[in-house]
Amino acid sequence: MIKVGVVGGTGYTGVELLRLLAQHPQTELTSITSRGEAGTSVAEMFPSLRGHVGLKFVDPSEASLNKCDLVFFATPNGIAMQQTQALLDAGVRVIDLAADFRIKDVKVWEHWYGMTHASPALISEAVYGLPEVNRAMIRNARLVANPGCYPTATQLGFLPLMEAGCVETGHLIADAKSGVSGAGRKAETNILFSEASDNFKAYGVPGHRHLPEIRQGLSAAAGHSVGLTFVPHLTPMIRGIHATLYARITREEDFQSLFETRYADEPFVDVLPPKSHPETRSVRAANTCRIAVHRPQGGDTLVILSVIDNLVKGAAGQAVQNMNIMFDFDECLGLSQVPVLP
Amino acid sequence: MIKVGVVGGTGYTGVELLRLLAQHPQTELTSITSRGEAGTSVAEMFPSLRGHVGLKFVDPSEASLNKCDLVFFATPNGIAMQQTQALLDAGVRVIDLAADFRIKDVKVWEHWYGMTHASPALISEAVYGLPEVNRAMIRNARLVANPGCYPTATQLGFLPLMEAGCVETGHLIADAKSGVSGAGRKAETNILFSEASDNFKAYGVPGHRHLPEIRQGLSAAAGHSVGLTFVPHLTPMIRGIHATLYARITREEDFQSLFETRYADEPFVDVLPPKSHPETRSVRAANTCRIAVHRPQGGDTLVILSVIDNLVKGAAGQAVQNMNIMFDFDECLGLSQVPVLP
Amino acid sequence: MIKVGVVGGTGYTGVELLRLLAQHPQTELTSITSRGEAGTSVAEMFPSLRGHVGLKFVDPSEASLNKCDLVFFATPNGIAMQQTQALLDAGVRVIDLAADFRIKDVKVWEHWYGMTHASPALISEAVYGLPEVNRAMIRNARLVANPGCYPTATQLGFLPLMEAGCVETGHLIADAKSGVSGAGRKAETNILFSEASDNFKAYGVPGHRHLPEIRQGLSAAAGHSVGLTFVPHLTPMIRGIHATLYARITREEDFQSLFETRYADEPFVDVLPPKSHPETRSVRAANTCRIAVHRPQGGDTLVILSVIDNLVKGAAGQAVQNMNIMFDFDECLGLSQVPVLP
Amino acid sequence: MIKVGVVGGTGYTGVELLRLLAQHPQTELTSITSRGEAGTSVAEMFPSLRGHVGLKFVDPSEASLNKCDLVFFATPNGIAMQQTQALLDAGVRVIDLAADFRIKDVKVWEHWYGMTHASPALISEAVYGLPEVNRAMIRNARLVANPGCYPTATQLGFLPLMEAGCVETGHLIADAKSGVSGAGRKAETNILFSEASDNFKAYGVPGHRHLPEIRQGLSAAAGHSVGLTFVPHLTPMIRGIHATLYARITREEDFQSLFETRYADEPFVDVLPPKSHPETRSVRAANTCRIAVHRPQGGDTLVILSVIDNLVKGAAGQAVQNMNIMFDFDECLGLSQVPVLP
Repeated sequence: MIKVGVVGGTGYTGVELLRLLAQHPQTELTSITSRGEAGTSVAEMFPSLRGHVGLKFVDPSEASLNKCDLVFFATPNGIAMQQTQALLDAGVRVIDLAADFRIKDVKVWEHWYGMTHASPALISEAVYGLPEVNRAMIRNARLVANPGCYPTATQLGFLPLMEAGCVETGHLIADAKSGVSGAGRKAETNILFSEASDNFKAYGVPGHRHLPEIRQGLSAAAGHSVGLTFVPHLTPMIRGIHATLYARITREEDFQSLFETRYADEPFVDVLPPKSHPETRSVRAANTCRIAVHRPQGGDTLVILSVIDNLVKGAAGQAVQNMNIMFDFDECLGLSQVPVLP
Repeated sequence: MIKVGVVGGTGYTGVELLRLLAQHPQTELTSITSRGEAGTSVAEMFPSLRGHVGLKFVDPSEASLNKCDLVFFATPNGIAMQQTQALLDAGVRVIDLAADFRIKDVKVWEHWYGMTHASPALISEAVYGLPEVNRAMIRNARLVANPGCYPTATQLGFLPLMEAGCVETGHLIADAKSGVSGAGRKAETNILFSEASDNFKAYGVPGHRHLPEIRQGLSAAAGHSVGLTFVPHLTPMIRGIHATLYARITREEDFQSLFETRYADEPFVDVLPPKSHPETRSVRAANTCRIAVHRPQGGDTLVILSVIDNLVKGAAGQAVQNMNIMFDFDECLGLSQVPVLP
Repeated sequence: MIKVGVVGGTGYTGVELLRLLAQHPQTELTSITSRGEAGTSVAEMFPSLRGHVGLKFVDPSEASLNKCDLVFFATPNGIAMQQTQALLDAGVRVIDLAADFRIKDVKVWEHWYGMTHASPALISEAVYGLPEVNRAMIRNARLVANPGCYPTATQLGFLPLMEAGCVETGHLIADAKSGVSGAGRKAETNILFSEASDNFKAYGVPGHRHLPEIRQGLSAAAGHSVGLTFVPHLTPMIRGIHATLYARITREEDFQSLFETRYADEPFVDVLPPKSHPETRSVRAANTCRIAVHRPQGGDTLVILSVIDNLVKGAAGQAVQNMNIMFDFDECLGLSQVPVLP
Repeated sequence: MIKVGVVGGTGYTGVELLRLLAQHPQTELTSITSRGEAGTSVAEMFPSLRGHVGLKFVDPSEASLNKCDLVFFATPNGIAMQQTQALLDAGVRVIDLAADFRIKDVKVWEHWYGMTHASPALISEAVYGLPEVNRAMIRNARLVANPGCYPTATQLGFLPLMEAGCVETGHLIADAKSGVSGAGRKAETNILFSEASDNFKAYGVPGHRHLPEIRQGLSAAAGHSVGLTFVPHLTPMIRGIHATLYARITREEDFQSLFETRYADEPFVDVLPPKSHPETRSVRAANTCRIAVHRPQGGDTLVILSVIDNLVKGAAGQAVQNMNIMFDFDECLGLSQVPVLP
C-alpha cells in the first residue's frame, strides 16, 4: 500500500485518475489539491465519486505532499515543472500527466508551449512513460512524463513499422480524431455542447503541440529523424481517440504478423484480426489500445487504425500503469475494468 | 464459485450482464446461448469483451443449462416462461430479466403483453426482484422476476411516500425519460442514430407496459390501489433513466429525512442533500440509484428526482445484486464499479 | 422594406435572428451591435452566414439605431430596459427578446431577476408578444416583450384548457425539457459538450425565472390566479423544447376538438391527430408549435405534449412573426422554412 | 413551372428532396412513389412536412410518371437503371440520386455494386452531375447521374490540384468522415443510436464503392489515371461530411489563389481564408461546399479540408442544382437557405 497525492484534481484527467485510484487495491489517496476548490468535498464536485472518495480538495500549501510515496500532477502545462524538484528532493516520486517533461529538446518545448522551462535540468532525467517502449526505465524512474493522448494512439500504431524499417519515414501521415474531453474541462465557448455537438472539424492544422512529441518518439524508434503530417480533429463524442495512420511500404513484410509479434506480451495493446475496424467505444473507460492493420487493395500504402480512450490509456490509465511498474505491482492491478459498451 | 448460464446474450442487457459477470469473483460463466449466433465468439460480436470473455454463443439445445447453479434470461418477453419450469425441476435457480414473471395478475399480464402466459403456475412463486422491498424473499427464491428499468427508478422514488402514507395516491404522476438503449438492440427504424439523435419525444402515452408493473409495486407499498399517470420519453443518450415524480402532500413530514431514513442501509440507493439535481451520468455504468427530494416554493406538491443506469440498476446490475443475495455473497460483490464520468 | 437594427448579435438568439432576417424579403439589416466584437465581420464569427450577411459588428455608440424602423434586443436580461425609452422617443419600435418587459408586476420581476428595473414606466405599455393571444395589441405596439422559450411551449399547450375552464387550475404541472442552446452561448462549465452530452438532469426545481411568466399568462387566460409546478430539464440536443403538461379534468369536453378549434386559424400552431407524439425535430429550424392531446386510459388526467424550436418559435422566429404583425406584412413572411429532418 | 415526380421518397435523400422542392418556386410536385408506403400521406410519415407537402405515396404502377417533365430517383442502387429508358422514351428527363449511372466503365460498376447493369447503353449518355465540372453538358442532358456524397466533397477538394498538375497524383489520400445519415434510413443494427453515438470508427477500409467514382473523376481532371487511398469513417452526427485530403507538392504554386480562382464563379463552393478550419455545421442544411487550403509548417504536403452537408450538396441539393441547370432556371433557385447553426 502506497501513499498517493494528486495535484489538481478538478479536470477530466484528474477525476478519471480518482475513479481509477478509488478501485486500486494498493494505493491510499492521502490528498488532492486545488487552489480554487480548497475545502470543497471531491464528491460534491463529482457526484459520481460519492461513496468512493471521501476527501476534500486542499490548498497546495497544506497538502503535505512530501509524505507521499508518489504524486500525480493532473495540472495544466507549466505547473509540474515548478514543484517537481522539491518533491524529488523529499524522496517523492512523480508522474506528470501534463507535457512539462515530455520533450527532450528544451528549445523545442519552449517554442511549442510558449513558456520558459522552469526545470530544464530535470528533463533529461524524466522518463517518457510509454511502457511499451520504456518499461525498464520506468521501473526505476523518479520522474515519469506521462504521454499525451494523440501521441499514445499514434506512436503505438506506427511503432512496429518504425522499428522494422519497412516504410518510408519522411512523409508519415496521422489523421487523428478526438472526443471533446480531450480539450479539458475549461469554460471555453468552442467546446460548448451547442458548438461541438452534431459537428465535425479539424483544428490546429498549421501546427499542434503533440506533433513534436510524436515525432520525437517515432524518430527514436526509427533510429533517425522522421517527417510527419499530423491533423487533429474534434468529433462529437466524449471519450476516445481514433488515429488513422498512413505510410508507404518500402519493404515487403507480413505486416499483420509484425504487429502481432511486437505486441504479443503487451497487456494493454490488442492487435485485431485482419480486416477489422476498431471502434473507440470498444475501449471506453478501459486502458486498452486496439489496432488494426490494413493494406487496401494490396497497394503500397499501409493504413493503421489505432483507438484508445483518451482519458485512460491516453492519460490517467497509463499513469496508473506507470505507477504499477514503478512500485512493482502487477502491471494490470486496478486496470482490469471491462470497457463500457454500449 | 457458482456456475452461471446466460440465455440470450446478444442484446444490451445481455452484453451488460457479461461485462458485470466478467468482473465478478464468485461466478464461472459456463454458457451463453443464442439461436441466431451459435458458433460466433462472444468477443467477436462485442469487441469490448476481448480478453474478458472467451466463450462462444451456443445453441440452446447444446447448452447444458441444467448443470448451472443459476440461469439468467436476457431474452425478449415470452421466452423465459417457456423454459423456467424445466430448469427449476433440475434444481437450477432462475433470474428473468424480461417481464414474464413480474405481474402477479395473469390477466393483466396477458392484456399488456398480448400473449397467453405459458407458466401461470409459476407466477405466484416468482419473487419480484427489487431488493429494497423484497430482500428476504429474494434470498430464498428459486425464481426471481427482475424489475423493469422505468419501474425501478419510479418505485424507488415513490416508495418512502407510499409507505409513509403522506401523499395523495389517487393521482400520482411519473414523467420518465430514458436513454435509447432501453429500447434494446433491435434493427428498428425509429431508434436509428439519425432518428433519435438531436431529438426528444414522448411515446406510449396512451399506455405503456411498465404502467401496471409500477402500479402493482406502489399499490403493495401503499396498502391500497394507487392511480398513476405514466409518461415515458426517449432522450438522445445511450444509458440512463431520469424519473421526475409528482405527488400532492396530504400530511406534513420532514420529507428529506423520510427518504434518508428509508434508504439508510441500502448500499445502492443514495439520497442526495436538499436542493440537489441528480444527473444520469452520475450513475453511468454503476448499480446506484440517486434520489433528490424537492418541494418547490414550499407548496403542496412534492417533486422527486430519481436516476439510474437503465442497463445496470435497471437491468443487469440489479440481476447481479439479486444473485448475490440468493447465493449469500456480499450484496455488493462485483458491483463496486465507480460511475464513468465524463 | 424596413430598416432593422439588432443589439447584441453574438448569442444564439442573435445568430438565429440574423439567419431569419437574411431570408426576409422586406427587411434591410442596417446594423448589428456588439461591444466585445466591434469591428469583427459577422460572417467571420458565424461562417454559416458567409454570403448572407455582409455587415461587421459595430460598437453600440456608433450604430445609429435611431434611424431604424425597428430594433431587436438579443441581449442578456437588463440591457433593453436601459436603452428602450430613448429609441421609442426617436420613433423606433422595439422588440426585446430578453425578459425585461415580460412581467407586469415589477416587484415580481425584480425578485426573480435580482435587479432593479430601469424603466418601470414602460412595463405597462409593453405588449407580451404571444401572437396567439395578443395579435391585435401587437399590431399597434411600440414595444413588444418577446416571450421566453419555455413560456411559449407551455402557454400554447395549456391555453385552450385555461380559456375553456375545464380543468383544475390550482395544481397544473409542466414538466419541460430543453435543448442546450436554451442556456445560451456562454462559456460555462456545466454546458460543455463533455458535461451535457450523454446526460440528462433537471435543474432549477426550487424555482426558475420562467415560472412567474408562465403563471402570469395562464392566469390571464383563466381569468384567475393559477397554481403551477414547473420543472425544467436539460436534454442532450441542440435545439428544441418538449413540454409535457398535466391537468385534471373538471368538466367533460371533446378536448381534441377544443384544441383544433382554438388554433384553427393560427399559422404556426399545428394540432396533431389523436394519439400523436410530436418530436422536437419535426419543428427543427421552423417557427411551428406542434401539440398533441392525450387522455391516458380515459382517466381524469389530461396530458398535453407541446414542442417548439426554442430558438425559432421560442425566440427569433416569434420575434420575426411579431415584426410581421407590427409592420403589416404577411404574418408568415420569411418564416416558411420547412423543418430540417433528419 | 415544371412537373416533377420522385421515385422512392421514404429515405433520407428522398425526404430532403421533398424539403427542397417544397420551397422551390418553379416546380410542381405531382407524384411520389413508394411500393411499401402506397396510400400513406407523406406528412404522416414525415411530420416535418405537414403543411408543406399534401401528397400521398402512390404505387409506382399508378404514378403517371410519363407526364412529368423530370423524374428524380431517390431509390436504392439498381432501381433507376431498370426504369430510366422508358421514361426517356416518353420524353421525361431523369436525375438519378443513386449510383446506377455514375461509373463509365460498366465492368468496374458491376464489380463494385455486385449486380449486372440493366441498361449499359445509357451509361455513356448519362452526364455526371457535378456542375463545377460538367455544367455545360448537364444543361442539355436527358439523364444526369447525381454524384455520391464522399465523391462530391473529395473531388471538389482535389480538383484544382488535379487540373493544375502541381501534386503527385499516384498516392493521393482522402480521409473522410461522414455523419450517420449517409448510411441511409435502413433498419440496421450498426447505425442504431446506441451503437453509433459516442463512438467513432473507420469502415470499408479494404474498399468502398465511392473509391472508383472518385478515382474516375480525379483521373479525368488530371488527364491521367490517379492513385487514391480512401478511408471513410462514421462520426456521431446526423449530417455532414468532412474530407481531409493529402497530396505531395511537385510544383510550387500559390495554392490559396489556385483554389480561389478556380471557384471564383461557383455559387456553391466557398474557399475560406488561409488558416481556416471549416466546420460541417457551417453548411448544415445548405447546398454549400466550404474548403480550406493548408500547407503545414511550409512542408511539401498539402492538406485540403472540404465540408458539405451529405444530404444537400452531397445529394438532394445538388440534384436540385442540376435540375435548375437543366431547365434554365437560376442555378441558385430554391437553394438560398442559410445554414442552420447552431
